[in-house]
Amino acid sequence: MTPYYAAADWGTSSFRLWLVSTEGQIIAERSSDQGLAVAAASGFEQILEDHLDALSAPKDLPVIICGMAGARQGWREAPYLAVPAALTDISGHAVEIEGTSRRIYILPGVASHDPEAPDVMRGEETLLLGNHADPHKMYLACLPGTHSKWVQVDDGAIVGFSTFMTGELFALLANHSILKHAVAGHSQIQRESRHFADGVKAGYSNPEEITSHLFSIRAGQLLQDRTGQDGYDRLSGLLIGCEIGGARVRFGQTENLRLVASGQLASIYDTAFALLDIPVTTVDARNAVLDGLGIAARRLFGSHAGRDGDL
Amino acid sequence: MTPYYAAADWGTSSFRLWLVSTEGQIIAERSSDQGLAVAAASGFEQILEDHLDALSAPKDLPVIICGMAGARQGWREAPYLAVPAALTDISGHAVEIEGTSRRIYILPGVASHDPEAPDVMRGEETLLLGNHADPHKMYLACLPGTHSKWVQVDDGAIVGFSTFMTGELFALLANHSILKHAVAGHSQIQRESRHFADGVKAGYSNPEEITSHLFSIRAGQLLQDRTGQDGYDRLSGLLIGCEIGGARVRFGQTENLRLVASGQLASIYDTAFALLDIPVTTVDARNAVLDGLGIAARRLFGSHAGRDGDL
Repeated sequence: MTPYYAAADWGTSSFRLWLVSTEGQIIAERSSDQGLAVAAASGFEQILEDHLDALSAPKDLPVIICGMAGARQGWREAPYLAVPAALTDISGHAVEIEGTSRRIYILPGVASHDPEAPDVMRGEETLLLGNHADPHKMYLACLPGTHSKWVQVDDGAIVGFSTFMTGELFALLANHSILKHAVAGHSQIQRESRHFADGVKAGYSNPEEITSHLFSIRAGQLLQDRTGQDGYDRLSGLLIGCEIGGARVRFGQTENLRLVASGQLASIYDTAFALLDIPVTTVDARNAVLDGLGIAARRLFGSHAGRDGDL
Repeated sequence: MTPYYAAADWGTSSFRLWLVSTEGQIIAERSSDQGLAVAAASGFEQILEDHLDALSAPKDLPVIICGMAGARQGWREAPYLAVPAALTDISGHAVEIEGTSRRIYILPGVASHDPEAPDVMRGEETLLLGNHADPHKMYLACLPGTHSKWVQVDDGAIVGFSTFMTGELFALLANHSILKHAVAGHSQIQRESRHFADGVKAGYSNPEEITSHLFSIRAGQLLQDRTGQDGYDRLSGLLIGCEIGGARVRFGQTENLRLVASGQLASIYDTAFALLDIPVTTVDARNAVLDGLGIAARRLFGSHAGRDGDL
């Protein structure tokens, strides 16, 4: 099968590349940990070309990229669209990399310039573009990760969003804080455990006490002989519960909720929402980013009767 | 002047020692960074004796110690008193170190065994003992630090308390998170700055969104050209505001508030309370720990008509 375009999701800590056919099928894919930090040092173009070579991609195959490659400290800055930002406007604001042997575009991120709560995203907007067929006019999307995004979408536009540092705080606390003693030696969250459930509920009910809840993990180890696994599960549950509780206050909405995630992260958040009796529809994040990049590619490179040709 | 006893506040990261006269006057003092971590490796007795030698303390001078030296991983475990814990009971539960050439006692900490919110303190109880002359039957004390404690005292007993990881989170976020780029190169909080004030108010008003507020520091740098100093002040303000806001929800009390702190920490918290229009009386932490250790010393070593002899 002949590839029609290459699509890349270039994040802070990871790089993923797909070759896609005119019918939107994945022909080949590659991934690595050559995220922004690595690429800024060793060169974006070289990394991209090496991966394209490894997949025997034609020399003139065009490339569409979303994510941190478009940051100020990335390959080339793709200035943020301001909210409210129509998802279908994203591809129109892609920036083209000049001086390369093939056509390469980077999609812009989205910014909220609210002086009280400035916020930015790069990549998540493309997943939401990929979710364009969502049946609800208005919905709230949770995109969990190092920096979880909660995004309000109304009539095909991002109207507001908020970033929660859940994943980064989890890693910092588990590895570098006093809590490391109470979570020692564990690296897999057991989402069926009572301690995960207790954490989710406590974090959600009283997110304002999160920095106090966190210390209870240490005290629980000292007073209640809780194990490292117990502490690990509770830490995860507390931070996720706090995120969901904070987002509930921020957006005042729990209906038409979309969880855009894949793999273990999807399972963990799905469990947390179920524990809180919050109905949520899960959208696969990998499919969403591929669909979003595909819509942008057809716009930029011309439609070949792809399934999103109507957009 | 002949010393009557030596008093030590032995914390996680610091060691402070005073020689005290029968009249309660400080004759000499020493301090170092030989806290729990250092002492557990190199030996508690050696460190104590070296500092006593340096102050030419008599070989039979008795010593009273509070803090982490009494932890399980400390010199000798001084089991926690459970809440409600009468402050005057603390000295009665001191543990004596055996096999040493002088009398050495370590005061116990206090624990809350609430299964939903287990919590522990070591050292703060001694500061509150030192504040025994407080005119109010019931008050709420804020003892800020790496792990800030909020303690409800009723009729001379600790009836409840909660630990907020404010100081530790500040250090982790400023040095190890994505926010380090937004606070780069700064190490002094400017409590008069607008960014500190904005942070305190935002953290206090919506403590449940703290992990989202934190990310706004990064976004503010990207979108609003905020400086490293701005970010540093805002980070401090947000975490302190969140602590005060969380404690307000936890204890439902803002009257009869005591801030037990010294130096820069006292100034910063005092400013935060003023920004929030919360009346607070400041108690000097150094005086409080000395008074608390003094009360315990008189109980354990016999009273010489010291000023706290009535307790």
